[in-house]
Amino acid sequence: MQYHLNGFRTGDPSVQPEGYVQDAVDVLIVGCGPAGLTLAAQLAAFPEISTRIIERKSGPLEVGQADGIACRSIEMFQAFGFAEKVLKEAYWVNEVAFWRPRPDGNGLHRAERIQDVEDDLSEMPHVILSQARIHDFYLEVMRNSPHRLAPQYNRELIDLNTADGDAYPVAATLKCLDKNDKTETIRARYVVGCDGARSGVRRALGHELKGEAARQLWGVMDVLAVTDFPDIRLKCAIQSAQHGSILIIPREGGYLVRMYIELDALQGDERAADREVTSDMLIAKARAILAPYTLDVKEVAWWSAYEIGQRVCDVFDDVPDDLRDHKTPRIFIAGDACHTHSPKAGQGMNVSMADTFNLGWKLAAVLRGQSSPALLHSYSLERQAKAKELIEFDRDMARLFSAKPKNADEAAQFQSYFKKHGRYTAGVETRYDPSVIVGKDAHQALATGQKIGMRFHSAPVVRLGDGKQMQLGHVLRADGRWRLLAFGGAGDTGQTGSAIARLCDHLATDPSSPILRHTPQAADVDAVIDLRAVFQRPHRDMRLDELPDALLPHKGRFGLIDYEKVFCADPREGADIFDLRGIDRQRGAVLLLRPDQFVADVRPLSDVSGIAAFFDGFMLQH
Amino acid sequence: MQYHLNGFRTGDPSVQPEGYVQDAVDVLIVGCGPAGLTLAAQLAAFPEISTRIIERKSGPLEVGQADGIACRSIEMFQAFGFAEKVLKEAYWVNEVAFWRPRPDGNGLHRAERIQDVEDDLSEMPHVILSQARIHDFYLEVMRNSPHRLAPQYNRELIDLNTADGDAYPVAATLKCLDKNDKTETIRARYVVGCDGARSGVRRALGHELKGEAARQLWGVMDVLAVTDFPDIRLKCAIQSAQHGSILIIPREGGYLVRMYIELDALQGDERAADREVTSDMLIAKARAILAPYTLDVKEVAWWSAYEIGQRVCDVFDDVPDDLRDHKTPRIFIAGDACHTHSPKAGQGMNVSMADTFNLGWKLAAVLRGQSSPALLHSYSLERQAKAKELIEFDRDMARLFSAKPKNADEAAQFQSYFKKHGRYTAGVETRYDPSVIVGKDAHQALATGQKIGMRFHSAPVVRLGDGKQMQLGHVLRADGRWRLLAFGGAGDTGQTGSAIARLCDHLATDPSSPILRHTPQAADVDAVIDLRAVFQRPHRDMRLDELPDALLPHKGRFGLIDYEKVFCADPREGADIFDLRGIDRQRGAVLLLRPDQFVADVRPLSDVSGIAAFFDGFMLQH
Ligand SMILES: Cc1cc2nc3c(=O)[nH]c(=O)nc-3n(C[C@H](O)[C@H](O)[C@H](O)COP(=O)(O)OP(=O)(O)OC[C@H]3O[C@@H](n4cnc5c(N)ncnc54)[C@H](O)[C@@H]3O)c2cc1C
Ligand SMILES: Cc1cc2nc3c(=O)[nH]c(=O)nc-3n(C[C@H](O)[C@H](O)[C@H](O)COP(=O)(O)OP(=O)(O)OC[C@H]3O[C@@H](n4cnc5c(N)ncnc54)[C@H](O)[C@@H]3O)c2cc1C
Repeated sequence: MQYHLNGFRTGDPSVQPEGYVQDAVDVLIVGCGPAGLTLAAQLAAFPEISTRIIERKSGPLEVGQADGIACRSIEMFQAFGFAEKVLKEAYWVNEVAFWRPRPDGNGLHRAERIQDVEDDLSEMPHVILSQARIHDFYLEVMRNSPHRLAPQYNRELIDLNTADGDAYPVAATLKCLDKNDKTETIRARYVVGCDGARSGVRRALGHELKGEAARQLWGVMDVLAVTDFPDIRLKCAIQSAQHGSILIIPREGGYLVRMYIELDALQGDERAADREVTSDMLIAKARAILAPYTLDVKEVAWWSAYEIGQRVCDVFDDVPDDLRDHKTPRIFIAGDACHTHSPKAGQGMNVSMADTFNLGWKLAAVLRGQSSPALLHSYSLERQAKAKELIEFDRDMARLFSAKPKNADEAAQFQSYFKKHGRYTAGVETRYDPSVIVGKDAHQALATGQKIGMRFHSAPVVRLGDGKQMQLGHVLRADGRWRLLAFGGAGDTGQTGSAIARLCDHLATDPSSPILRHTPQAADVDAVIDLRAVFQRPHRDMRLDELPDALLPHKGRFGLIDYEKVFCADPREGADIFDLRGIDRQRGAVLLLRPDQFVADVRPLSDVSGIAAFFDGFMLQH
Repeated sequence: MQYHLNGFRTGDPSVQPEGYVQDAVDVLIVGCGPAGLTLAAQLAAFPEISTRIIERKSGPLEVGQADGIACRSIEMFQAFGFAEKVLKEAYWVNEVAFWRPRPDGNGLHRAERIQDVEDDLSEMPHVILSQARIHDFYLEVMRNSPHRLAPQYNRELIDLNTADGDAYPVAATLKCLDKNDKTETIRARYVVGCDGARSGVRRALGHELKGEAARQLWGVMDVLAVTDFPDIRLKCAIQSAQHGSILIIPREGGYLVRMYIELDALQGDERAADREVTSDMLIAKARAILAPYTLDVKEVAWWSAYEIGQRVCDVFDDVPDDLRDHKTPRIFIAGDACHTHSPKAGQGMNVSMADTFNLGWKLAAVLRGQSSPALLHSYSLERQAKAKELIEFDRDMARLFSAKPKNADEAAQFQSYFKKHGRYTAGVETRYDPSVIVGKDAHQALATGQKIGMRFHSAPVVRLGDGKQMQLGHVLRADGRWRLLAFGGAGDTGQTGSAIARLCDHLATDPSSPILRHTPQAADVDAVIDLRAVFQRPHRDMRLDELPDALLPHKGRFGLIDYEKVFCADPREGADIFDLRGIDRQRGAVLLLRPDQFVADVRPLSDVSGIAAFFDGFMLQH
């Protein structure tokens, strides 16, 4: 954690100095769910961007909704600076148990018990924590930002209009629910609809969620209960012989348990309310499934009859496909507003946050003058493809989960599918197609374990300056910066003439250097592209005073030296980062990382022109 | 982290439900340094104890003073629930470099570079963080406690009187500095003077700090600077040929550095102020020592000329040695009020916190009716011995550090001393003598790595209920509870008839069971003595439904089951907790742990009468 660069400051370093708030609104965010809050937290990091986030409800979420947090989401929380809070409070999903009817038909038995997340899939675990607490953490990030950003509650979006040519072309009409429904208009450069499954922004765009007509009705309840079911503190999928199936998700705090209970399919316009589900019905059903084990529910903390379809929109912005070459987007939709899933795979909250983590840095890059607005097309392209893939996966998963297993074979089928898709539900399988911000695999062989188009896969390293053992991925903060990670080849210690030294010198001094071309004069040298290096040599055998200047940059108003740019492989655990991530030990490699931690490209250390050309593809010159 | 036992509650689980505050004050704490705040945070955990903490200054500390945080202190912070915040913000001391004059007399060279904390000394690192931030974290714990405890600032203790026989026998007179120095009187059952090196409480008791007349004057400054000294982000001890020595302590945030610069010895009544030290003098001296390396100081965040003697009081309470058998203590002193050290070993803050962590649970036990007031004698006995030992260590250390090394041999002597005492400065070598709360080593052989009288040494385990890999030591919260850790012998899985099962049944049902004897009727079964078990069998081979009831206790208003009492050895890293801590694999063992995490005794699993007798030695029957 670095601070004090521009002068020593007392107090909590996560509270940043207060910034200024402009009158005009660059971005209006509609809705304070996980999608809206991720975007607000991201944009709040930039003092020069003004953001407003509105919410129809009268205050923050307190209870209920989603609770599954994938490894990938925690990697992202790390970038926002609150992963350790989630890890502390949450239930950790270490294992999953599968219960099935006993072969003799008498009750249930545990058919299998497996590790939930495979080893080295992520440095982060899969955890369970109330969506409300995730909201709290985002709200805290926003509150601590230079903007002291806070949502405006009691504001309902009721209309949306675009006036081309205007600097603030989108006009949003809001109903002020705490002021006798008085209306108010906000003008914005961009509007992002994070307004959930019944999105008004989606409606204003004329988009539709497409998918199956039948929607599954699920009962979900968070309970405090006494039971003799032995795996009540493990995630369990339980399929009974007669009464359907249940998913048990132990919750944070050691006592609370969530149960997902499958109810019926809804048809056409039928709504969950029509079924008149009650919590007593859910409890009765849960007891029937769990029998002969007992279930004595002492308190129902929250329950819901939650209807769900596997649906997705064709486009996530306001640009019709045939106008992509002529028009750049002004209005976006994200999260449940453009795709919905069954709760089974625990993806709703995670994918919604990933949507706006993808969008946030792009909006920031355009608004800060780093990129042209054409960059914004990539949001719908990248995330719509991801959502479609997820819907398909989710549909299969839900179908398998609902099908009463006729025999051991069928039941086993579900388990094997579940295992196979562990990587998928962990959120680390997302892969974006080649584009201006994703390279074409030409040099993938230099870093086989860091797939172009996928998220950077962290591994342990030692920081040279202070000898700290740490995860390399944890330097990738949600700060809108691109990163160049240069991995040294054999014998490279940064000494004059080495490949790393030559790359650094080029980046620091050559007029064609992307760092020089794209960084504003007054900004720190790493403000737009953050150069870091990883060497193979053990850190005690390295010499700091041998390093190229670019790896010990002077920054801030005092010109202080940043000592946190250089890392060494950590041999202590056997395999080091070069082994773990398949980085070419002979030749080294440069990884180009996007601000959302995705690997944009892999290049040879000597390929300075290729690197420059990549950035020229979407960044503006300063 | 366990919560929701007595009902589901939304919001931040570290904020506890608000309690009631009594009119009478059980404990008055004088001074808001690390000693006072540790005690306040500890006492605030108990709704039935009323505490007031006063401070002469007008608000919390913002800058300066101590910054070294020993491993042991972080283990304690873990018990208070804020270790992860310290770990996140702090500088981690991974290595120490020793610089000496070059043999040819030209400038400096790095003579050695060593690991700062030896492997497996603690699961926690040695870190550096401003004392002000540690205060902040304690204040947050207090604010979140049932009492919402906050210090009263602008209150100076000016007088202290004791009236024997009164329920609140100590009367403290305070000057209200924000009310024209109006005075106010507080009556208290107990008063603890945590009022620093010039303690008024100590004066009121007529105690004296005894030690050498000469006190060392140190210059200390926290600076933002540019230098070409390569190890500026490592902890360094630098001895120059001509200009004395300097200790470099990198600070949190990546840029700030603390420098301790040795100045002269003060004589008699001479005060630091008499030397008219300025920050410019300190900078000039630092540059001379570091030459030929450059040092360009951009900002001095804090500096001080800090005088120090190695001194200690004979007694830390108000009971004269010859009255120990007739009178129990009412007034205590802790921290700098009863012992002072040079900053070299970085012990001041750590030992001060350890003092009141030792005292806190004892005061709570007496005030909650669990123990007789005689228990309170052990505070002065245990901590005074520790302080004396520390003073001696510190004096040697300071002398060695100050001596200009005449040759490489002498310089090397310092280094070897430094290394040898790594364990000592980490705070894990403290060992209390046998007493009513420390056993006599009779069965130490059953757990050779958990020394009776020393702090419990954590190791990794797997929690049975949810398969979580974790540190066993992290269940030892600062909640005033004793703990019985039962380690299973060969073949013990808790099955009926096994040694663990027999112990559990005895503890749960036998009239002589210490749990039954010392736990109030209305309280949870683990409210006073918390029983847990650790088995050797891998957790997947264990059966939860085979465990004795005492390891799955029903608790709280709903009678919910606590699933976090049972752990298994974790074979994944090679050596498991039985290997690491020398626990007898054949016979198992029971560890009796004090509320301050110290090992009170080691007993055979079958020694139910010995265990009962131990608790009878100081606990009252209910
Ligand atoms: C009742 C409910 C129960 C759920 N239960 C589960 C579950 O058990 N398991 C699971 O995995 N997932 C569950 N989900 C889904 C999960 O919560 C979502 O996938 C996730 O919250 C999506 O995040 P989002 O930010 O896209 O949308 P949301 O979290 O739905 O947030 C949208 C926000 O926009 C606000 N809004 C809507 N319209 C307007 C408007 N016109 N003006 C202003 N504000 C507006 C809404 O009030 C809401 O706060 C549930 C969702 C709901 C609504
Ligand atoms: C100026 C200064 C610089 C220091 N620098 C270093 C350093 O560089 N490195 C290092 O390791 N250690 C340093 N220390 C020592 C370290 O801070 C102490 O060892 C540690 O703070 C001891 O904690 P404590 O709680 O016992 O006492 P303190 O932290 O001294 O706290 C005592 C508190 O009691 C208050 N108080 C005193 N008298 C009264 C009264 N009559 N009524 C009400 N309140 C009262 C004081 O204002 C103070 O807040 C420094 C201490 C001081 C004072």
